[in-house]
Amino acid sequence: MSNVYKKVELVGSSLEGVDDAIARAIEKAGETIRNLDWFEVKEIRGWIENAEVQHTQVTLQVGFRLDD
Amino acid sequence: MSNVYKKVELVGSSLEGVDDAIARAIEKAGETIRNLDWFEVKEIRGWIENAEVQHTQVTLQVGFRLDD
Amino acid sequence: MSNVYKKVELVGSSLEGVDDAIARAIEKAGETIRNLDWFEVKEIRGWIENAEVQHTQVTLQVGFRLDD
Amino acid sequence: MSNVYKKVELVGSSLEGVDDAIARAIEKAGETIRNLDWFEVKEIRGWIENAEVQHTQVTLQVGFRLDD
Amino acid sequence: MSNVYKKVELVGSSLEGVDDAIARAIEKAGETIRNLDWFEVKEIRGWIENAEVQHTQVTLQVGFRLDD
Amino acid sequence: MSNVYKKVELVGSSLEGVDDAIARAIEKAGETIRNLDWFEVKEIRGWIENAEVQHTQVTLQVGFRLDD
Amino acid sequence: MSNVYKKVELVGSSLEGVDDAIARAIEKAGETIRNLDWFEVKEIRGWIENAEVQHTQVTLQVGFRLDD
Amino acid sequence: MSNVYKKVELVGSSLEGVDDAIARAIEKAGETIRNLDWFEVKEIRGWIENAEVQHTQVTLQVGFRLDD
Amino acid sequence: MSNVYKKVELVGSSLEGVDDAIARAIEKAGETIRNLDWFEVKEIRGWIENAEVQHTQVTLQVGFRLDD
Amino acid sequence: MSNVYKKVELVGSSLEGVDDAIARAIEKAGETIRNLDWFEVKEIRGWIENAEVQHTQVTLQVGFRLDD
Amino acid sequence: MSNVYKKVELVGSSLEGVDDAIARAIEKAGETIRNLDWFEVKEIRGWIENAEVQHTQVTLQVGFRLDD
Amino acid sequence: MSNVYKKVELVGSSLEGVDDAIARAIEKAGETIRNLDWFEVKEIRGWIENAEVQHTQVTLQVGFRLDD
Repeated sequence: MSNVYKKVELVGSSLEGVDDAIARAIEKAGETIRNLDWFEVKEIRGWIENAEVQHTQVTLQVGFRLDD
Repeated sequence: MSNVYKKVELVGSSLEGVDDAIARAIEKAGETIRNLDWFEVKEIRGWIENAEVQHTQVTLQVGFRLDD
Repeated sequence: MSNVYKKVELVGSSLEGVDDAIARAIEKAGETIRNLDWFEVKEIRGWIENAEVQHTQVTLQVGFRLDD
Repeated sequence: MSNVYKKVELVGSSLEGVDDAIARAIEKAGETIRNLDWFEVKEIRGWIENAEVQHTQVTLQVGFRLDD
Repeated sequence: MSNVYKKVELVGSSLEGVDDAIARAIEKAGETIRNLDWFEVKEIRGWIENAEVQHTQVTLQVGFRLDD
Repeated sequence: MSNVYKKVELVGSSLEGVDDAIARAIEKAGETIRNLDWFEVKEIRGWIENAEVQHTQVTLQVGFRLDD
Repeated sequence: MSNVYKKVELVGSSLEGVDDAIARAIEKAGETIRNLDWFEVKEIRGWIENAEVQHTQVTLQVGFRLDD
Repeated sequence: MSNVYKKVELVGSSLEGVDDAIARAIEKAGETIRNLDWFEVKEIRGWIENAEVQHTQVTLQVGFRLDD
Repeated sequence: MSNVYKKVELVGSSLEGVDDAIARAIEKAGETIRNLDWFEVKEIRGWIENAEVQHTQVTLQVGFRLDD
Repeated sequence: MSNVYKKVELVGSSLEGVDDAIARAIEKAGETIRNLDWFEVKEIRGWIENAEVQHTQVTLQVGFRLDD
Repeated sequence: MSNVYKKVELVGSSLEGVDDAIARAIEKAGETIRNLDWFEVKEIRGWIENAEVQHTQVTLQVGFRLDD
Repeated sequence: MSNVYKKVELVGSSLEGVDDAIARAIEKAGETIRNLDWFEVKEIRGWIENAEVQHTQVTLQVGFRLDD
């Protein structure tokens, strides 16, 4: 109940769009961080090639519980 | 032309992603509010379970015309 | 390497959702602007009709390289 | 002295300008809310027709004292 | 899991300080709103009399689950 | 319904005040831009001479529909 | 050309509206400060009585040149 | 009713916490400024020593009525 | 004098209030990080149960000196 | 005195630093825009290669007077 | 340790660039204010003449310790 | 192309100015982090001694590619 959490800032990118970029960032975070709890989207941007969205980048803060 | 509008702040959530969370919040608002006119996304966040996005939460302000 | 870029602000709209509204704005920009390079989402909003999202509007800044 | 207040967000619009749009939103709020106490302007925008301001829209938060 | 929440904006005030002003706003909200779930502090301000803090005002957004 | 809009940023100034500065910026924009649709006020400032407001400057973003 | 300026923050209020509240704050500042040069509006708010705007308050930063 | 107010920005600090840091800043301001009327908290930060909060710093804007 | 610092973002929570939540986050950080130097409060929020604040959550950035 | 200005958003980049990146963006703007009057820095960022700043990018808004 | 600080807002300008404009504002402040302790950059802007930066203006808040 | 990036927040300081403080923070980061890619300036501040800038502090977020 009185846990302490830490937040890290990640940028996920995807060829498909916003939701997939979020999923990729969290999946990657899960490889090295335990107890992932929530995320907050900070920025959505992306790169363009030949006048088409090449990939979408979502910056998010991911919160996780610090072990006792 | 010189109408007065009111805005309420809602949080929709979805297992599918941003667009669906918006749709759910507006559908719910429509059950009790008439004349819904526009929405503005204020925040996108979400909850994680086992290193996967469990559901996405979108906070939005929904504007509706007050009856004369 | 020391290029100068310009940014223009566009609003794309779509019946399908956020990703599609981004794509439409960039496709339109590509008709008249060369060297489109990146975009930044500034605002997500939309219009409602009969308590359903009618279309989603995404305001974005699109950056492009100025020709030498 | 230790009252609790509530704030609602309204959008007033006027053919005349900023001050009149504020007045209209507050007059409308007064029809259904007692003890209106203060307002805060959040946004000023408007609609254009034939290159003239058609009407000015002011978004404001209006605070009122909750009855004991 | 896919609930919709609503947020209302309240201002609590207290002769004692920040924590007590939060508590008073939430207690008041609980008299008329069910399913209160979380709060977010938006602003801390207050009134001064004879060069002493007379009371502290905390503006908060309070989120609650809409009934199904 | 799925139009793309562009926004330009203008600064209008007036000896009379906020509403007139908005009107002047939009009138000027209308000389070269078709399909002006809405404006958003970004900043209000001004210049002072002999302790009187000399003129008021309003920065606004003006949105217009791109031709198909 | 390489002057140093100072900014002070003032709140003007008026029974008439935004432009007049700006003018009053600057007129007052001019009684004690020389070389007033520009102002920037930071906030517009006001007090309500009997569901009518009682007076409008405009917070502004006023810049003036420091004497050499 | 149509008074002009000035705001000054102060930083109070305290070994005890947020409320006490606010009180100290206002008490200090009261030594040289008359007619103090309200405060707005702008920032809460602090210094750490040996992994304990040494003192809490609260930045606030304090408003006071200018004499006629 | 020309040190480099790093900042991490933590969320402390407490049954008692803002000051205690700050203290808990810093105490926890001190278990694994040396040379903690300052903190900045970014957000105050909390969870509610039965119309009472259950615990207060304070998000802070904590700065520490990197070893040479 | 009652001129209308337009602002465009540019990104200058430089191998030397902030001041030079500003100068390059303005020099480039001057090739196609007359009556350039002022600039406002919106963002400073840059690219890194081999742990050294490769070039610094400054985003600025540049204001110019529209011809009568 | 429990000092109270005051912050004033200054604008320094320089023909050379950002660092020099900061230095000039602080040097000027030092002529009339004792115990200057820190500064925070709030805005960087400047004036253009003949498509060259004429001088750079940096707005900063300067903090100083109030005497006991 | 679909990489995930992490951002860390650093504060560099320098006796010389903004550009040098950025360079020092990035050089330090490069000692322990591989694949540094970009930086974003978040805040510029500094410490004053005897009415002169003692050193300039630049807070930046530094982004780097996570290894696959």
